[in-house]
Amino acid sequence: MASSTAAALVRPAQRVANLSKDVWYVTVNEAAASCSTPVINLGQGFFGYNPPSFVIQAAKEALDRVDCNQYSPTQGRLRLRKALSGAYSPYFKRILNPDTEILVTTGANEGMLSAFMGFVEAGDEVIVMEPFFDQYISNIQMAGGKVVYVPLHPPEKGASEVCPASEWRLDLEELRAKVSEKTRMIWANVEIPCWNRHNPIGKIFTREELEAIGKICVENNIIILSDEVYDRLYYKPFTRIATLSPEISRLTITVGSAGKNFYATGWRVGWLIGEPHLIKYCGAAHTRICYSSVSPLQEAAAIGFEQADQVGFWEESKKDMQRKMALFNEIWDELGIPYTEPDGGYFVLANLSKVHFPEDYPFPDHVSSRARDFQMCWWLIKEVGVAAIPPTEFYTKETEKEAEDYMRFAVCKEDTVLEAAKERLRKLKDFIR
Amino acid sequence: MASSTAAALVRPAQRVANLSKDVWYVTVNEAAASCSTPVINLGQGFFGYNPPSFVIQAAKEALDRVDCNQYSPTQGRLRLRKALSGAYSPYFKRILNPDTEILVTTGANEGMLSAFMGFVEAGDEVIVMEPFFDQYISNIQMAGGKVVYVPLHPPEKGASEVCPASEWRLDLEELRAKVSEKTRMIWANVEIPCWNRHNPIGKIFTREELEAIGKICVENNIIILSDEVYDRLYYKPFTRIATLSPEISRLTITVGSAGKNFYATGWRVGWLIGEPHLIKYCGAAHTRICYSSVSPLQEAAAIGFEQADQVGFWEESKKDMQRKMALFNEIWDELGIPYTEPDGGYFVLANLSKVHFPEDYPFPDHVSSRARDFQMCWWLIKEVGVAAIPPTEFYTKETEKEAEDYMRFAVCKEDTVLEAAKERLRKLKDFIR
Repeated sequence: MASSTAAALVRPAQRVANLSKDVWYVTVNEAAASCSTPVINLGQGFFGYNPPSFVIQAAKEALDRVDCNQYSPTQGRLRLRKALSGAYSPYFKRILNPDTEILVTTGANEGMLSAFMGFVEAGDEVIVMEPFFDQYISNIQMAGGKVVYVPLHPPEKGASEVCPASEWRLDLEELRAKVSEKTRMIWANVEIPCWNRHNPIGKIFTREELEAIGKICVENNIIILSDEVYDRLYYKPFTRIATLSPEISRLTITVGSAGKNFYATGWRVGWLIGEPHLIKYCGAAHTRICYSSVSPLQEAAAIGFEQADQVGFWEESKKDMQRKMALFNEIWDELGIPYTEPDGGYFVLANLSKVHFPEDYPFPDHVSSRARDFQMCWWLIKEVGVAAIPPTEFYTKETEKEAEDYMRFAVCKEDTVLEAAKERLRKLKDFIR
Repeated sequence: MASSTAAALVRPAQRVANLSKDVWYVTVNEAAASCSTPVINLGQGFFGYNPPSFVIQAAKEALDRVDCNQYSPTQGRLRLRKALSGAYSPYFKRILNPDTEILVTTGANEGMLSAFMGFVEAGDEVIVMEPFFDQYISNIQMAGGKVVYVPLHPPEKGASEVCPASEWRLDLEELRAKVSEKTRMIWANVEIPCWNRHNPIGKIFTREELEAIGKICVENNIIILSDEVYDRLYYKPFTRIATLSPEISRLTITVGSAGKNFYATGWRVGWLIGEPHLIKYCGAAHTRICYSSVSPLQEAAAIGFEQADQVGFWEESKKDMQRKMALFNEIWDELGIPYTEPDGGYFVLANLSKVHFPEDYPFPDHVSSRARDFQMCWWLIKEVGVAAIPPTEFYTKETEKEAEDYMRFAVCKEDTVLEAAKERLRKLKDFIR
């Protein structure tokens, strides 16, 4: 039997059959690998520096303890659930029960999958706002759900002015029109953190916007999955949708991430917060997905939360990221390129409509067939030596036009890296018309 | 709106709707929590001691490196994939390509879910040998698969003699009869490691048995999921089913675990090994499940594999576990209780048919309604102070009778703990008839 025959015989499940190359692969791996000098990677939102030393120290100490190297309870280590209750109860304006209202997951990603697996059946619909983080789409599809998109519209003056992220807007009537009897959940990237999670915008929905979204969900009994993984990096006040009313609270599952909070995206420690009737089914799904989550790093995250306030980490973290943002954005001001200032998180969205790469640039076919931002991204890597993320990746084909002039840069990197990137981006001057 | 109404409105997905208490919960948490003196837990197979110091040291050093705290590639860190290729190519009798034939997963558990999600569609059937590890059942159900059971029969003299695990047998005709057009996979616990994975038996299938199973799979194009997580703890030679023939190799996905290899069940680092046409779809599912796995502990596992041979860890590990097994089993010899000596792993299965707990013992309803071993387990915790696992948990209702006289004890604990357990178990003398 030839190997190709064998491969043909073992057909994959439909949910994974489409193996198209994703943006991370095409940009960072493929384009970067063909460059002679190392590319400066401002694409993916991993941190270019280590977690704070008190958290690293906690992880090392956990590694010396037998119980911290063995299975944790499936719902998460009690110490972490207690620490999360302590840290988040004030924000949720009620005491969160660590036994029934908090679930530790293997990163926020697996937490979201747990929520979808817990509540979405084959054929159910999940509303996702555009732009979206690509991972969510496949998470929903893994549960057999159908994704229904509602676009967030960019500011009209985005190509000519520096615009605050809050000017990107959701049309509530458009949202309402997408609700059907099959709508089970909405992926409510309703606060900054969400809008910054792997997607280009830093918008915070206003309290009024959130109330309107919440009203639609309560009327239609739609579960709200609120991605708040950047909740410690907001630069303006923001409202947690779960706190708006008891009716909205009863429908809301809030997602958090130790990886984002403590600069450790590779630790895979996240959590879900919600009322018991929601968390118990997320927990059942989580147990069936990966049984339990990584023990020593759960312990370290617990200690991180216990100590963060007293060492002033949250404030320092916010200030430091804003400083990096300002440092990096100097290059756009210098070049006269408009950019979206995020309300939170660490992604800058620059509008590169003024930058013109050569029309006859030799793009490979799988790049030339993509939107302008994809080509820009490839060209930036190859000719400028800086990797960023083309935001049309976070849009459907129908609406990607809205985003094709933008490019997403992650600033959660060492200052020296940001300075080096700026120096390289200075070359764009020759291509601005 | 009353909370109960809200809860009624947000119905869970069918796949998690059944929230029956599992054996781990009932025994370890519920029974143990009501005891005045701490129970000695020989139930779950977590280690009672730490990973070897060279591996702990590697983890600590990884925590100091920026790249080891951030996202790893979704398919796993290259260093670990290379180390696994180095460690396993000799066993697989061919060079395993670290880029296409090895996938790092979030523990063996999530690895198995990735395999099911990669190949099982709604309505497909997956054959599982009984006894089974309960987690697999829900993994299969998460993918929409239907579980079809084939029992492994215990030795006829199990109640009166010490029997080697190899005497438990699979009826091949029974297996063949369960194959249908819908059969997509078989959970082939075909070597010791499998039989010891969270289930009571330590059987190694013979080469002939494996060839017969493989033949059935090749004839019917059934993917073989071979759970080999205890592959470094076998006490007799064993055959890896993937190595039997090219035809069988093309259908086999082998599962491994750093947690089991390095005494770190809480690290959640596992892997799948198989030909590219299998691994690529497991990888697509894995990416959609949890994106990537825990970085610093992947690095530590890589270093563990790089150094294990030179420090003689594998041999030492095996000897030490056999010593613990012999140490613990002294109590059964002393009491005249027969037990199954495993061919690998660290679970001892004792036949407690001679032990009679009081007929009027006040079991709670959810225990008195279960099989005899469940009641025995509850009574052992409450009256003897030792927790073990009732093996009917790993059987279907129809066949659980075969297992109800047994009790599973994990010996991967400190010697002092094993000695203390023996001292407590000595009390059984008064209940043997």
